Amino acid sequence: MERIDGGITTPQGFLAAGVHCGVKYRSLDLGMIYSEVSAKSFIGYTTNKVKAAPVQVMMEEDPKELRAFIINSGNANALTGKRGYEDAKTMKAQAAKALEIEPEEVGVISTGLIGRFLDMPKIIYGIDKASRELTHGREADQTAAEAIITTDTGIKEVAYRVKLADGSHIMIGGMAKGSGMIAPHLKVLNGTTLSFITTDAVLSDNFNSVWQEILNDSLNMISVDGDQSTNDMSVLLANGMAGGDCADDDPTFLEALREAMRELARTIALDGEGATKLIEVTVNQAKTKPQARSAVMSILNSPLVKTAIYGSDPNYGRIMMALGNSECEFLVEEVHLTIKGGDLEIPILEGGAPVFEDQRSVEVVRMAMDNKLVQVIVDLGAGEESATGWGCDLSYDYVRINAEYTT
Amino acid sequence: MERIDGGITTPQGFLAAGVHCGVKYRSLDLGMIYSEVSAKSFIGYTTNKVKAAPVQVMMEEDPKELRAFIINSGNANALTGKRGYEDAKTMKAQAAKALEIEPEEVGVISTGLIGRFLDMPKIIYGIDKASRELTHGREADQTAAEAIITTDTGIKEVAYRVKLADGSHIMIGGMAKGSGMIAPHLKVLNGTTLSFITTDAVLSDNFNSVWQEILNDSLNMISVDGDQSTNDMSVLLANGMAGGDCADDDPTFLEALREAMRELARTIALDGEGATKLIEVTVNQAKTKPQARSAVMSILNSPLVKTAIYGSDPNYGRIMMALGNSECEFLVEEVHLTIKGGDLEIPILEGGAPVFEDQRSVEVVRMAMDNKLVQVIVDLGAGEESATGWGCDLSYDYVRINAEYTT
Repeated sequence: MERIDGGITTPQGFLAAGVHCGVKYRSLDLGMIYSEVSAKSFIGYTTNKVKAAPVQVMMEEDPKELRAFIINSGNANALTGKRGYEDAKTMKAQAAKALEIEPEEVGVISTGLIGRFLDMPKIIYGIDKASRELTHGREADQTAAEAIITTDTGIKEVAYRVKLADGSHIMIGGMAKGSGMIAPHLKVLNGTTLSFITTDAVLSDNFNSVWQEILNDSLNMISVDGDQSTNDMSVLLANGMAGGDCADDDPTFLEALREAMRELARTIALDGEGATKLIEVTVNQAKTKPQARSAVMSILNSPLVKTAIYGSDPNYGRIMMALGNSECEFLVEEVHLTIKGGDLEIPILEGGAPVFEDQRSVEVVRMAMDNKLVQVIVDLGAGEESATGWGCDLSYDYVRINAEYTT
Repeated sequence: MERIDGGITTPQGFLAAGVHCGVKYRSLDLGMIYSEVSAKSFIGYTTNKVKAAPVQVMMEEDPKELRAFIINSGNANALTGKRGYEDAKTMKAQAAKALEIEPEEVGVISTGLIGRFLDMPKIIYGIDKASRELTHGREADQTAAEAIITTDTGIKEVAYRVKLADGSHIMIGGMAKGSGMIAPHLKVLNGTTLSFITTDAVLSDNFNSVWQEILNDSLNMISVDGDQSTNDMSVLLANGMAGGDCADDDPTFLEALREAMRELARTIALDGEGATKLIEVTVNQAKTKPQARSAVMSILNSPLVKTAIYGSDPNYGRIMMALGNSECEFLVEEVHLTIKGGDLEIPILEGGAPVFEDQRSVEVVRMAMDNKLVQVIVDLGAGEESATGWGCDLSYDYVRINAEYTT
């Protein structure tokens, strides 16, 4: 497998476009993905009980195959009642008409402000425009990726070229958005991060459970603010145009897909609203996988941990406080806590107490925390399960961005 | 019942002191409470799995009666292993010696920075000093209340005079600390808010379950940052010196005690680190009481809700997002959401969509949010249970305080 420069149209047969239709004041605000042939679709949806209208529509239809996907930004079409529901349906119908396919072959999602009705004439204008501008290549990738972002500071893309076990080559392309209201718990039918992965590999209908597993190890392990959106959605489209064997179990394909999703996840975490640092938390030796995940998320979500890391403040007691509030079982005396940053790797806790207490050592912890990537490693000594997750620090800018969002 | 000017020594037979012993640079840092006769004790402890040394010691002994309580601030004696455990025992022993009582008659708790060992010579000096300075009256109340605070902006006191059903008069006095790491889930044996309530009423050994119920409606319903401390403790001492009938079931006593605890809870929430506003969330018509509580806490803990209220930003969709992430069952179409502030009471949501959409109405929501007390009322239409809780907004100052705490 090889990480390459590419995006959503890198796999064969996928086209995309991004246009400005006026939901936002000036930026691109409507993106479209199109496959020349029908693509198998695997979709993870937000588990927030308040679901945006397009999420409701998509969960009801639960499409197994799609030809196209439309995404508007600037307005989430959430808390919009019956009118919003009808608007989401209209978006599908309009795209189908413009693309000369069936409405059931079109996926739809929105992201942006909650509780406002869509300005449908603008949306319809945008859909028609995007459908005429569909193309492939790096410009198409990037305009589509740009059209789906909101408070993100940049576009988020990924692409891999993979050689399968049967010798054939397939491509994976992806784009994502997400900056705030990020703590997805995506379930494959049953995150507002949006992520779209295209591939020309051949996949079977049974790939859903693998997609859930990959989501659990990637997007479901990030948190910017612990607030799961009403609009999260994670879409994998596989059109099989590369031919070859079914890639469901191909280890290299799975590794590349997982790595693509993890890369998007890390990018979202680092682009968290106001973030200045990426925090990676790994919990090892947990009794169960859910406990390991709970411990990771509890540490990542703690405002006291996040502010301490923002200030490079060696207040590691807060990490243990957050661990203690998780659903994880452990004995404090068995826990080893390590903080890594730059070239520094510092053991902090052993036998339920700090390894050191002198001021010089504390200063070394501060130096480790003063890096763009801060890693927290917790060895629980309670079992054999591990989990890793990503989050970001909590800065003045987070407050600024979110105290002023609608205005 | 009558709210009076008073504190921890207002009930008969209680003395207190607050001294400076040097754990902190200059502020008072060691407080002591003393009862002339043995007092029944009812104690709620943090449910964080990482428990400070004094919490471990107290939970092991689970004292039913106490004569004295010592509290140091500036150092939490948490994550201090065996040495911390021994230090907590030594604090009890030293106080017992100074007061000429038994170590089992002395309660102990610490609050402050996690992961540092106590400077025991200073603590011992402070215990001896405090035991010599024990007295009653408003000065004693206030020096004790001052000695237990950390990042609090002021002392937190409460007092009530209560006429019981049998005609006798009893007093309730209280003090508390708490500003950050506040989201207690206190369990009577089995919040770092610390709260101490003294009363000269007669209570039976069975009052524990009532105390748990009162904690569930007061301290357990506040959140500053969603982070439960390793050191939370909530202590009720009843020495019976007012005489009269057992007050276990006396409705006026219970009302006064509950109101005293709710007042301390609200004071802690409003004094949350960096807070500029008190947020009161009430959830009505929930299916069950735990669901109502879960919904309240999910809204209070959402950084996106907290920053929106800080900025008086009428982004009410975030309230619904937070509700949807709680464990509460409801239909969005049935939910009524109301925001109150000052003289304004504004219905926001009906039938799953906003009641209004024009800009002028949105401005009225902003005006309502631009008050020191912002009330959020959610009627779920799913059942008959209610819960109310208190939190605070998330400001630049929260970030500043917590990015710089240890330094």
